Amino acid sequence: MLEELKKKVCKANLDLVKHGLVIFTWGNVSAIDPETKLVVIKPSGVSYDDMKPEDMVVVDLDGKVVEGELRPSSDTPTHLVLYKEFPNIGGIVHTHSTYATAWAQAGMDIPNIGTTHADYFHDDIPCTADMTEEQVNGEYEAETGTAIVQRFESLNYIHTPGVLVKNHGPFSWGKDATEAVHNAVVMEQVAKMAFVSLTINPSLTMNPLLVEKHFMRKHGPNAYYGQKK
Amino acid sequence: MLEELKKKVCKANLDLVKHGLVIFTWGNVSAIDPETKLVVIKPSGVSYDDMKPEDMVVVDLDGKVVEGELRPSSDTPTHLVLYKEFPNIGGIVHTHSTYATAWAQAGMDIPNIGTTHADYFHDDIPCTADMTEEQVNGEYEAETGTAIVQRFESLNYIHTPGVLVKNHGPFSWGKDATEAVHNAVVMEQVAKMAFVSLTINPSLTMNPLLVEKHFMRKHGPNAYYGQKK
Amino acid sequence: MLEELKKKVCKANLDLVKHGLVIFTWGNVSAIDPETKLVVIKPSGVSYDDMKPEDMVVVDLDGKVVEGELRPSSDTPTHLVLYKEFPNIGGIVHTHSTYATAWAQAGMDIPNIGTTHADYFHDDIPCTADMTEEQVNGEYEAETGTAIVQRFESLNYIHTPGVLVKNHGPFSWGKDATEAVHNAVVMEQVAKMAFVSLTINPSLTMNPLLVEKHFMRKHGPNAYYGQKK
Amino acid sequence: MLEELKKKVCKANLDLVKHGLVIFTWGNVSAIDPETKLVVIKPSGVSYDDMKPEDMVVVDLDGKVVEGELRPSSDTPTHLVLYKEFPNIGGIVHTHSTYATAWAQAGMDIPNIGTTHADYFHDDIPCTADMTEEQVNGEYEAETGTAIVQRFESLNYIHTPGVLVKNHGPFSWGKDATEAVHNAVVMEQVAKMAFVSLTINPSLTMNPLLVEKHFMRKHGPNAYYGQKK
Repeated sequence: MLEELKKKVCKANLDLVKHGLVIFTWGNVSAIDPETKLVVIKPSGVSYDDMKPEDMVVVDLDGKVVEGELRPSSDTPTHLVLYKEFPNIGGIVHTHSTYATAWAQAGMDIPNIGTTHADYFHDDIPCTADMTEEQVNGEYEAETGTAIVQRFESLNYIHTPGVLVKNHGPFSWGKDATEAVHNAVVMEQVAKMAFVSLTINPSLTMNPLLVEKHFMRKHGPNAYYGQKK
Repeated sequence: MLEELKKKVCKANLDLVKHGLVIFTWGNVSAIDPETKLVVIKPSGVSYDDMKPEDMVVVDLDGKVVEGELRPSSDTPTHLVLYKEFPNIGGIVHTHSTYATAWAQAGMDIPNIGTTHADYFHDDIPCTADMTEEQVNGEYEAETGTAIVQRFESLNYIHTPGVLVKNHGPFSWGKDATEAVHNAVVMEQVAKMAFVSLTINPSLTMNPLLVEKHFMRKHGPNAYYGQKK
Repeated sequence: MLEELKKKVCKANLDLVKHGLVIFTWGNVSAIDPETKLVVIKPSGVSYDDMKPEDMVVVDLDGKVVEGELRPSSDTPTHLVLYKEFPNIGGIVHTHSTYATAWAQAGMDIPNIGTTHADYFHDDIPCTADMTEEQVNGEYEAETGTAIVQRFESLNYIHTPGVLVKNHGPFSWGKDATEAVHNAVVMEQVAKMAFVSLTINPSLTMNPLLVEKHFMRKHGPNAYYGQKK
Repeated sequence: MLEELKKKVCKANLDLVKHGLVIFTWGNVSAIDPETKLVVIKPSGVSYDDMKPEDMVVVDLDGKVVEGELRPSSDTPTHLVLYKEFPNIGGIVHTHSTYATAWAQAGMDIPNIGTTHADYFHDDIPCTADMTEEQVNGEYEAETGTAIVQRFESLNYIHTPGVLVKNHGPFSWGKDATEAVHNAVVMEQVAKMAFVSLTINPSLTMNPLLVEKHFMRKHGPNAYYGQKK
């Protein structure tokens, strides 16, 4: 079942390696099938070297394995919470990419200080709050999703398609797995550039006019970046 | 038309990838034909993976597309302002390369603190002022060019062939597209080295004698670097 | 003798190169045979380019060469002390990898500030004390091992399988040579991320709940990460 | 003439590229023939892509071209001063490698804070003083060599085979071109690690016992690192 989606999710996982975002098995991509609401996700702890589409695991939104020989990623419950709470997304990525993870470890939002950031993320990329004892010792991975959702209470998850989980690492999403990977690459790059900017100038300022302009010229109703669709 | 120039501009765009200055479609190179004053530029938002010379777009100095199936780069109006105001340049490059962009995000000029810099850029690589509401909400991309030109009022654009647009990223230029790419690579490298230098020593000093010496031995009337032309 | 182990140790040494942890001959991997208590180790100062399993040297726990044409690594006495004092380890790695070595040169423990770290190392990765004149001018390499053992007096060497030798570089270990290399790669990565985190936020904090949770979900009695064994 | 030496010098120049120490034509290697006292050096401003042994230029110690169609490197006079003043060296390298150049731009000695450094350089890698107007406007490249020699008045050029020219970049040397390249690679690596160490700990300390121990175990009369010669 969902053989096309498995191919796309498998390729998206391998693209994480190609873009230098993961080492060993540290990362996972999933996608949701809009009709059946089934989620295709990478298996847990499996090497990228010989990963094949048929290794992908199919789970329902309650986390029940519907198809697949292998255990799904241990982060599956986080993905499922996001699919349930952010209904307009089609793909999710989690990595421990170097610079985004470093910001998560620093417990700091990645500030929107340039048009590279504003082209993809309208606001600062937020960092979640510390998880409570109840959350960590409860359904930890699902609670990680809840911590993300709580952080977006006053944020638009479509306009800012990514987050840092404090002391952990980044999650990003998009309309499908490919766009979620794209946003993960962008987040790593803006995390690296913001590290350099902040190191040479602790008093960063952003021209707020540029935020609106760049976000809108790519994503607004009159977007004019790229080729006509 | 301008088939030779299209080949050169296409190759120059691909060289940006080879030198690690761009990811995805973030970058563009153009060149102007000195006789017809027509500009050849990369199409907007097109993947470098299968970019061909015939994809290049030809526009006149008013921005009218003269030849080409695709939309020109969204940054085309910036390039056109520079060709009009800096009459002795033949090629222009824009990237979001990591370290140069980080300096642009920091809103700081890249200081001339070494002979690597002085060999190519006589002065600090300047960062533009914040753009005004009128500029951003008007003809934004053309106004970006105007902001650059304003920053060069008391600077020599031939002696310092590059600039940082604040909160955005670098532009560089040269006598043709190849030299503009060369200067983009140098700018990224001096941006990286200046980041390291400034981090270990916040009180940088430059021997001003070296600035004149190195710039002149490569670009002065008695230049003696390289082979005889 | 021990031909299988030599192959594994040779491959583990070459994996250090593949993971970018060594340049020139700066690194060494060893493994101990649990039955004979013989140790297989890389020869000293030999190029990785043409290293073969038969170049590996076999020594006993007193450092006597049992088999092999070449001198064993000059760090062999350090490895032997660790095998004697840490009886449950099967492989050891020493490198001068960039970021871990930089922390060793800084004389600082690598703080446990993220789940990437906690997934593999329960505590901060400790840095040894300054070695004394007696230690340096005595059996220096063996005393390096002793300095490591002293640093672990109140630490669990299984839960935190790595150390920084002050002003020198990292050692890591594991149940075999492969796991020791794996831990060396992780240590370098967490060292790099902690450098970035500390640079942007000098007041780092870690949620202690995450330390227990992540370590236990991979290594505790009810571990649920990866596939069923 | 000196065809063997030309091959070695050409290969050493290409090794700079392989080790990531140069971009474009920014670097040069030379070697001296101990019998004839003739120096073989890279031509000026020539691309590494198609550099061949026969392109190497042969000059005498007065700088007269003895053989070769191309101009020698513009830094030739610096090399010649070093060969005359440091009689026991056989090869010299100059690069603008990223981290060593950044320390030169910072005008700071690279501190000896680890055994990686002490294995190759007994002391801090020194940075020269500012050159005077007379030096810069006189025989600049030869005076650069003089500035290096002056900096070594109270240093041993065999024990510390490298230097930073202030606001310029590193020079290194060795018994032949291969060793000079090796030392250039080490200098770049210790420059990078010292940058990281200093950024996370502004109060670096080195155990002076380690300096003697590590330098002596590789270079002293009872050296025991590597294989028996």
